[in-house]
Amino acid sequence: MPLRLDTGDAGFAAAFTALVDARREADEDVSRDVTAILRRVRAEGDAALADYTQRFDGHDLDRSGWAVTAAETRAALHSTPTDLRDALELAAARITAYHEKQKPQDSDGVDGAGVRLGARWTPVDAAGLYVPGGRAAYPSSLLMNVIPAKVAGVRRIAMVTPTPKGEINPLVLAAAQIVGIEEIWRVGGAQAVAALAYGTDHIRPVDVVTGPGNAWVAEAKRQLYGVVGIDMVAGPSEIVVVADGRNDPEWIAADLLSQSEHDPTSQSILFTDDAAFADAVAQAVDRQIPALSTHAVARTSWDANGAIILVPDLAEAMPLVDRLAPEHLELAVDDPDALFAQVRHAGSVFLGRMTPEAVGDYVAGPNHVLPTGRRARFSSGLSVLDFMKRTSFLGLDTGAIRAIGPAAVALAQAEGLPAHAASVALRLR
Amino acid sequence: MPLRLDTGDAGFAAAFTALVDARREADEDVSRDVTAILRRVRAEGDAALADYTQRFDGHDLDRSGWAVTAAETRAALHSTPTDLRDALELAAARITAYHEKQKPQDSDGVDGAGVRLGARWTPVDAAGLYVPGGRAAYPSSLLMNVIPAKVAGVRRIAMVTPTPKGEINPLVLAAAQIVGIEEIWRVGGAQAVAALAYGTDHIRPVDVVTGPGNAWVAEAKRQLYGVVGIDMVAGPSEIVVVADGRNDPEWIAADLLSQSEHDPTSQSILFTDDAAFADAVAQAVDRQIPALSTHAVARTSWDANGAIILVPDLAEAMPLVDRLAPEHLELAVDDPDALFAQVRHAGSVFLGRMTPEAVGDYVAGPNHVLPTGRRARFSSGLSVLDFMKRTSFLGLDTGAIRAIGPAAVALAQAEGLPAHAASVALRLR
Repeated sequence: MPLRLDTGDAGFAAAFTALVDARREADEDVSRDVTAILRRVRAEGDAALADYTQRFDGHDLDRSGWAVTAAETRAALHSTPTDLRDALELAAARITAYHEKQKPQDSDGVDGAGVRLGARWTPVDAAGLYVPGGRAAYPSSLLMNVIPAKVAGVRRIAMVTPTPKGEINPLVLAAAQIVGIEEIWRVGGAQAVAALAYGTDHIRPVDVVTGPGNAWVAEAKRQLYGVVGIDMVAGPSEIVVVADGRNDPEWIAADLLSQSEHDPTSQSILFTDDAAFADAVAQAVDRQIPALSTHAVARTSWDANGAIILVPDLAEAMPLVDRLAPEHLELAVDDPDALFAQVRHAGSVFLGRMTPEAVGDYVAGPNHVLPTGRRARFSSGLSVLDFMKRTSFLGLDTGAIRAIGPAAVALAQAEGLPAHAASVALRLR
Repeated sequence: MPLRLDTGDAGFAAAFTALVDARREADEDVSRDVTAILRRVRAEGDAALADYTQRFDGHDLDRSGWAVTAAETRAALHSTPTDLRDALELAAARITAYHEKQKPQDSDGVDGAGVRLGARWTPVDAAGLYVPGGRAAYPSSLLMNVIPAKVAGVRRIAMVTPTPKGEINPLVLAAAQIVGIEEIWRVGGAQAVAALAYGTDHIRPVDVVTGPGNAWVAEAKRQLYGVVGIDMVAGPSEIVVVADGRNDPEWIAADLLSQSEHDPTSQSILFTDDAAFADAVAQAVDRQIPALSTHAVARTSWDANGAIILVPDLAEAMPLVDRLAPEHLELAVDDPDALFAQVRHAGSVFLGRMTPEAVGDYVAGPNHVLPTGRRARFSSGLSVLDFMKRTSFLGLDTGAIRAIGPAAVALAQAEGLPAHAASVALRLR
């Protein structure tokens, strides 16, 4: 049974705070293991990669091949059913179109003091993409990670993925072929992230590493943050649905379950102002679960982390939603904009009754790599900006340095930095 | 003596690679200490802060006061000499003007498939600023960290700073008063960063922590990354100057020393195509150092980390500069734009002979918090964006879900996520 709360209950404030503070993230203490793996890959390079791959994935890289060949990716796309190929291509086109609009503008101008000031954006040289093996190898994730890098203008994209016993998900390869990835290494785990960051004889180093992974992969990225850029540390998926009583309870139940089925640690929360609707959704969830191939995960997640919260008015839900700062927020009402105007913290918002979160996972266009675990308070979904950096620039002439130089000299002297002061003062003579 | 290299020398490639790879960052292993401090502050809150402050800073917070009072900051500004106050105000105005232009644009529109797509930027609720104590307490750093947050629209800014024996730099307080900081806590070190991230009874938690600090502070930020947002991990300061022989060697020497004087680990590198000019600069550096109050630091840094590199043509310096990806890059030539067009990786670029890097430290307008240690390959200077986050949004109607929904259903089924598929399929019936 999921949690049931009512803002009118005496214990509501404490119970809701407990819900907000509940950490669903595994506290697996893998940091020491990961430190050792990173150190060894840095020191031994490919030899360490080969050894870890034999140990963890059960294959010999020198026999199976270090890289997936171009023929393999071409063949994977060729053997993909037409409807799936079309769906991947539609998704790629729409994700590309959305991300094109994120490309930042350069600036360059001269201000009133005669100082030329500007900013120029450039792509990173190389991006590394981690793709998990097995069940969690999602072609949609590949598109969501690669396309922003491509739109940013990144010249080289290197993908790493574990291939347990040499096997690899053909739909992932098909997606790689569609977006034109030409470098795919059969390595996974913390060792693969280390190889991307430090480089080995086979794998040249990259500048940014993104992509989902297990606790070891996440910890490797965290430890290598600063050696390379990384996307945000990702936690369990979550959805908040704000719905009035005029929705079909079956639709809303399916929306809640679309998060619950991801992982036992996923979280689905419904806010509604209609007690009868809340009951109807709860019943629909229970009806739908047994039919899912993912029923065991969905059941565990919904019972352990699900919640239905009754509010007197949906507007009163919005400050509570802000405290949760959810990854996904559905506003299933006739006028979603009125509620959306009140939202300060959310990764992605789905407006209206006909916008299930799952369209955003695949084909709508916005990125599905989004901040989890209340991180929407300070971070954003993956974007073109994660694969670019900004160089500021300035230029002074004699007039400009006379206008602003003396203030720089005064401040440098006050901060006890005489060479700073001299570098300006010499030019003022 | 600094390193002298010539691209024409036989050993140049190896020597330059060694220069690029040289890590000047201290490898102080403080991570275990910091982990313990963070854990204790999280568990014990203010009691832990008081204890650490007594131990490390030698004062009793309950006696000295936890916070700097409004009267203290007002008094500090009041007693600031007029020229310094004017300089701080000029700096604040120019930094504000530059950062105003970084404010991102929201988007909202309907595409050809009838899908409404957009992105909305909002500020974080609260930002925490770390200001070091003692010699490294720079009012300019305070302005550079606070103004982007203010421009972003951050409502609450909480500053922490160690006040050894209760003392605090009055010019830092004056700068705080100019930009309107109303919350200043007399705590420092890893424990102060922990307090900002987790919150205590005195200090409410923030969403983003920025600002420079020692190895403990940097490690605390690194460990708390994900609990809060942080600015980039910062390393020793560095400058690359690309100069032809038509510069005044005294000016260029001062520019090089303006980095060398920061810290023994700072780095200053000159590229020039004129061997006689190289000698003249080297001599000017040696002449200038003894007159500096910072001579000991400057001497150590210049001898240990400085370099003068002779190139046959300045254009040939640019790929080498890209490998260094310097924090600061001066292009001291008549036509700096021709060289700048070749630069891919640099934090901030200073164009022309009249643009010493120090004007950028104080009054030009761009941020002086910049990526160091080759991190300009993938990261940018501090900006308004570090204090904001983007919420993507989408909205479908019946026509739009019919247009793109079937592809989402196909992909969800292929990925083995039936509730995802159902949430869309139910709406297609």
